[in-house]
Amino acid sequence: MPDPPPRAVTIADIAAEAGVSVPTVSRVLNGRSDVAPGTRERVEQLLRDHGYRRRGVRPHTEARLIELVFNDLDSPWAVEIIRGVEATAHAAGVGTVVCAIHRKASEARSWLIALRARESDGAILVTSAVDPVLHSELQRLHVPAVVIDPAGVPALDVPTIGAANWAGGLSATRHLIELGHRRIGFIEGAPALLCSRARLDGHRAALESAGLLVDPDLVVAGDFEHESGFRGAAAMLALPDPPTAVFAANDQMALGAYEAVRRRGMRVPEDVSIVGFDDLPGSRWASPPLTTVHQPLAQMGMLATRTVLRMVRGEAIESPRLELATDLVTRDSTAPPRPAG
Amino acid sequence: MPDPPPRAVTIADIAAEAGVSVPTVSRVLNGRSDVAPGTRERVEQLLRDHGYRRRGVRPHTEARLIELVFNDLDSPWAVEIIRGVEATAHAAGVGTVVCAIHRKASEARSWLIALRARESDGAILVTSAVDPVLHSELQRLHVPAVVIDPAGVPALDVPTIGAANWAGGLSATRHLIELGHRRIGFIEGAPALLCSRARLDGHRAALESAGLLVDPDLVVAGDFEHESGFRGAAAMLALPDPPTAVFAANDQMALGAYEAVRRRGMRVPEDVSIVGFDDLPGSRWASPPLTTVHQPLAQMGMLATRTVLRMVRGEAIESPRLELATDLVTRDSTAPPRPAG
Repeated sequence: MPDPPPRAVTIADIAAEAGVSVPTVSRVLNGRSDVAPGTRERVEQLLRDHGYRRRGVRPHTEARLIELVFNDLDSPWAVEIIRGVEATAHAAGVGTVVCAIHRKASEARSWLIALRARESDGAILVTSAVDPVLHSELQRLHVPAVVIDPAGVPALDVPTIGAANWAGGLSATRHLIELGHRRIGFIEGAPALLCSRARLDGHRAALESAGLLVDPDLVVAGDFEHESGFRGAAAMLALPDPPTAVFAANDQMALGAYEAVRRRGMRVPEDVSIVGFDDLPGSRWASPPLTTVHQPLAQMGMLATRTVLRMVRGEAIESPRLELATDLVTRDSTAPPRPAG
Repeated sequence: MPDPPPRAVTIADIAAEAGVSVPTVSRVLNGRSDVAPGTRERVEQLLRDHGYRRRGVRPHTEARLIELVFNDLDSPWAVEIIRGVEATAHAAGVGTVVCAIHRKASEARSWLIALRARESDGAILVTSAVDPVLHSELQRLHVPAVVIDPAGVPALDVPTIGAANWAGGLSATRHLIELGHRRIGFIEGAPALLCSRARLDGHRAALESAGLLVDPDLVVAGDFEHESGFRGAAAMLALPDPPTAVFAANDQMALGAYEAVRRRGMRVPEDVSIVGFDDLPGSRWASPPLTTVHQPLAQMGMLATRTVLRMVRGEAIESPRLELATDLVTRDSTAPPRPAG
């Protein structure tokens, strides 16, 4: 085995010697699985031969600090993710630094400076749109990153953890069909997010596989905020032939739909059944308790943490995208429709 | 000015030379205000003269990391506090490490070990009962600590940030009296916590100052959990002379009371008015939106962070206990009682 060269070896040196591209070496270093096994072996051997050491990375491979980055900390599901990440990190003796960058480039920059100063070992980004600048900066710093992406936007060259949005949408509408509902309204999520589309597609698939027509009047726009659920449900309940059930693409819009039902002097579920999506703690405390699709946010946090800790140790990651199952939690907001009369 | 002695000076040396006790020197070091000004000056002069340096503390006085410690991360108000702490810390270039220790001595110990390893500069403990062992360990490590104590239990020798619970209780019940209610039920918080008592005392003070009797049937036990609010309200609504309004000592119990009203086939606020306490985000999304006492959790987090960062810089803290104001947010869950018929 040759001695390490006098100047520190670079990724470009390794790439040239292995006859591969620099991004390929980077993928091997980041534990990505989308590298041919033969190439991986050759690159890993060269990294070992040259005693390659990541710039700015402490020589030991046990993590000490990871960063958990949100756009905002005002969503009720943030604490679910924090809980999962913290439990896994704490058990590994690793600290979880929680940050919010408010979609601002200036805050992302100050975060990167702070991350460097405290020598954090990895990052979990909770976001539906990873800023490419942020991403390349993390790559430059050789800080492994994992994206928790409840929204399902295809991410950059980073492992992502998501949930089965389409299957969740399917199960919610199937449940309503099984109860006897035929006119089922749908309140869409934010249009820019793929998860919104996946939930709608699951809803449509359930209708069509039951031989039901998708009535365009019964699909209304929403943006995941409470207010849009209220407006969407109010609009559908004012139709000449209103739905007997409403599936809202998240819990907050479902609670907005509750309020639309209440304002019409009607009751959930006697007059209108309502289903949500997320199963945040608040859905248990709704009156009536909300039937909803459980999204395992804490488990997504746990899996993201295990993944990033493995990347810090230089282990390979099996799959660049992992989806956890969603499942329907039946509570008291759904019931058979009133007999037509 | 004498040269620093060859061996590092200890707190005991300083105490002996100043003719004060070791805890007094410790109080000066921790920026506490409950030290006579003359004593503080004498001790500070000696610390400077001897070039005293806190053990294990980096020589610079700018914080890099602080710890935010919860018992559990399952409460919806945790994210409010995290939001306030993170915003203030991030703006100061300081990372916020979030931890949950689940009331377990073993997890507190592993947290202390990790805190030492990552050289955190300060700690904010969100708890109603600071473990004395934890506290003395933090003192030994010279890590300044602040307690955010929504429950109001008198804390140890640490600055605490709380909210005006008694005044909040008073304002909630006054609001119901002003609407015309005379039979007002109260669902108590967890009996071990002083904040429960303060809210009840505020409620009683409002009744008595309006010349109303405190009916013992209209004060029922609770524990801050949703279920206890449901049970408490159900019990009072089943009385021969039920209340026309219910004040629950937190939002989650208030939402439990909603469910008790719904199960009796009654409506909020037409049949029963309900008031909560906390103003968590979920109270806006309740149906009807909940009238509640706003507890400024994010601001409490901000103030705790500013305080601990000042302590890290060695600045004096004005008051060992700070209480932020609470105020009533009137939404749609309260209305005048139905005319007696």
